[in-house]
Amino acid sequence: MKAEIIIIGDEILIGQTVDTNSAWIGEALNRRGFDIVRKITIHDNHQDILGALNEIGTGTDVIITTGGLGPTSDDITKQTLCEFFGTKLVPNRVVLDMIEKMMKHRGIPMNENNRKQAEVPESCRVLTNAVGTAPGLWFEKGKTVFISLPGVPYEMKYIMNEHVLPDLSIHFKSQAIQHRNIMTYGVSESRLAEILTGFEKDLSSEIKLAYLPSYGIIKLRLTGTGKNISVISHELEEQVIKLRNIIPDLIFSEDEESFEMTIGRLLKTFNKTVCTAESCTGGNIARMLTSVPGSSTYFKGSVVAYDNAVKEAVLGISSNIIRSEGAVSEAVVRAMAESARKLIGTDFSVATSGIAGPAGGTDEKPVGTLWIAAASVRETISEKHTFPGDRITNIMRFSNAALNLLRRLVIRE
Amino acid sequence: MKAEIIIIGDEILIGQTVDTNSAWIGEALNRRGFDIVRKITIHDNHQDILGALNEIGTGTDVIITTGGLGPTSDDITKQTLCEFFGTKLVPNRVVLDMIEKMMKHRGIPMNENNRKQAEVPESCRVLTNAVGTAPGLWFEKGKTVFISLPGVPYEMKYIMNEHVLPDLSIHFKSQAIQHRNIMTYGVSESRLAEILTGFEKDLSSEIKLAYLPSYGIIKLRLTGTGKNISVISHELEEQVIKLRNIIPDLIFSEDEESFEMTIGRLLKTFNKTVCTAESCTGGNIARMLTSVPGSSTYFKGSVVAYDNAVKEAVLGISSNIIRSEGAVSEAVVRAMAESARKLIGTDFSVATSGIAGPAGGTDEKPVGTLWIAAASVRETISEKHTFPGDRITNIMRFSNAALNLLRRLVIRE
Repeated sequence: MKAEIIIIGDEILIGQTVDTNSAWIGEALNRRGFDIVRKITIHDNHQDILGALNEIGTGTDVIITTGGLGPTSDDITKQTLCEFFGTKLVPNRVVLDMIEKMMKHRGIPMNENNRKQAEVPESCRVLTNAVGTAPGLWFEKGKTVFISLPGVPYEMKYIMNEHVLPDLSIHFKSQAIQHRNIMTYGVSESRLAEILTGFEKDLSSEIKLAYLPSYGIIKLRLTGTGKNISVISHELEEQVIKLRNIIPDLIFSEDEESFEMTIGRLLKTFNKTVCTAESCTGGNIARMLTSVPGSSTYFKGSVVAYDNAVKEAVLGISSNIIRSEGAVSEAVVRAMAESARKLIGTDFSVATSGIAGPAGGTDEKPVGTLWIAAASVRETISEKHTFPGDRITNIMRFSNAALNLLRRLVIRE
Repeated sequence: MKAEIIIIGDEILIGQTVDTNSAWIGEALNRRGFDIVRKITIHDNHQDILGALNEIGTGTDVIITTGGLGPTSDDITKQTLCEFFGTKLVPNRVVLDMIEKMMKHRGIPMNENNRKQAEVPESCRVLTNAVGTAPGLWFEKGKTVFISLPGVPYEMKYIMNEHVLPDLSIHFKSQAIQHRNIMTYGVSESRLAEILTGFEKDLSSEIKLAYLPSYGIIKLRLTGTGKNISVISHELEEQVIKLRNIIPDLIFSEDEESFEMTIGRLLKTFNKTVCTAESCTGGNIARMLTSVPGSSTYFKGSVVAYDNAVKEAVLGISSNIIRSEGAVSEAVVRAMAESARKLIGTDFSVATSGIAGPAGGTDEKPVGTLWIAAASVRETISEKHTFPGDRITNIMRFSNAALNLLRRLVIRE
């Protein structure tokens, strides 16, 4: 089954907004056996929307559009959909009631724009939106399903989860597809590809391998497609067993987990807690750990000691060590980890000190230099890394390196 | 001048990776007067890449492709480009030297994949890449320029900044285009559109207004196009003056700054410092503040007090107040701000306590409830908010609300 995604919005084309919707939709559809053949982003205007709808490939089963359903005057998707499907806008009582209720709850008076949002094309099925004012719209033309969704990410996700994904499962019968995601860390994509050359050559035509790198983490995705789900499942499991033998030290999860999810799971299992002491990562590791729902059971807190004075005053690091070794040093990062663990009162801690750039580098300690440490009651381990990259990339790579060190310590104990 | 962007990669289509490259490229080209007419994302296979190249609209001046230049075996963009342009791959000495040097610097031995990356289509001009192993490729066919770039964001940006953007300026003579970005905060997009109905109606055909919302911030982007840059510039300035009169309290920057950039600029100007005390935002505000290069001059540190015990032990909040008022309360968030400011020794501080969800809500304090406070030597101000949204959206909205409160306090002093 083939799917296309059409993203409508000038703000996406001119890069004012990064489109995360199509990634989310692509993943959700792909998991359900759809081949995403194309994503296209177009201007928020009548001609281009109509052009994209008319250009859809033959044999495409589902088209999902996002954007252009908002209340501002440049939003003309609904009018254009009416033209394409030969229908007209009519007020919808259910949608109007939901909007009125929502505005009342938020304490905002209804306005003309809100009332316009309750108008929908007459020939579509309305997909109600309990978290926003723009409903989703489901059209059918020949064998093809067209779905129009709002561009606000959590509204789009709500309508996808509540209506679109269950309804598509009923509408189409899926081809058997299965994924296994093996998370690795520690070598470059190029080096990993070299290690796995033989493994890749031996894969059957039903199994495909993809390398998906992200800030030092490389996700290996094995995708099996075919007629029989149990045959695919069995073959994928055999390949995973092979991978475990080839790269045992590089794999940190077989469940598509990020480091923060893996660590969260481990800490919950062992009933242990963690804190962070961050210099160069500026709170990003704490943010990553707390992005996981339920993290309050094991994450207790953090000291972001950006300034050396804070390293001294809050974490009690000796000013002598900072002066003699430098803030970016093994001695300081180990002291940070140990001190934060005691101060915040956790079983584990992780600390960072490095130079994210663009300024602050020296010949001896260039931009990209990182010292990390992880501490437990029993021991403290530390590592030095040097990364290439810009400030934001460095902060992300630094954070992953630190989380990996923490993960190794948690597993060891 | 028209531009199209082609993103190559299964990992983008299936949503394993969020494509941020095309937003960056779109913005860079748009600023230089290109109309981005289309972005298209396709499979990493020969047929689809060739199909996309053949489908390019007539009158398109520049096509930029990203992805498919990596070392793994599914990367076949270069071979397909050779076919499209009727040329063949040849080894390139300059590129090989750069790759050898880079691998040596990183302490990684050269392998066959690295050597393959030094092969380039014979008819293209090579755009060297000093930060990675895949060079950019510049082709010309008729009046159209084709540029192929690697998909790794910082490598793509390096080649764009070093080669593509300057070279395009020479190759094409730009149409006059100018933007003014007015950053607003405080009302919904729908309400803002209502307030600005008359303003929009009065805009001349040369000026376009776009609403670009992001976690509570709405950027108003005025774009002027025409023949004479000084006429456009003058007319944009007149519209900005009008906006200042219509929505004086909503505008927080006229320079396309985020809150963290605005605050950084203000603190630098006044030679003041700041810290954060975060509960529900889990370090995200510290991360935002430190994402700005040079933030170490005014950002000193942060206490992430996720657990109530940390609020007590590190920030010295009385357990009586936490028990009687609850952690998500005005009393606690004010105490957090005041205590962190003294502990870390800064001029200003900002604190958050709320319920990001999905769990932890009650009837009295539902998910989305937020208390924020900002403190200075002279005073402490605080506010309550209630937001809709999922966990990650809430954390972002909470952070922006807190930064806005901090900004207001910094300006007042």
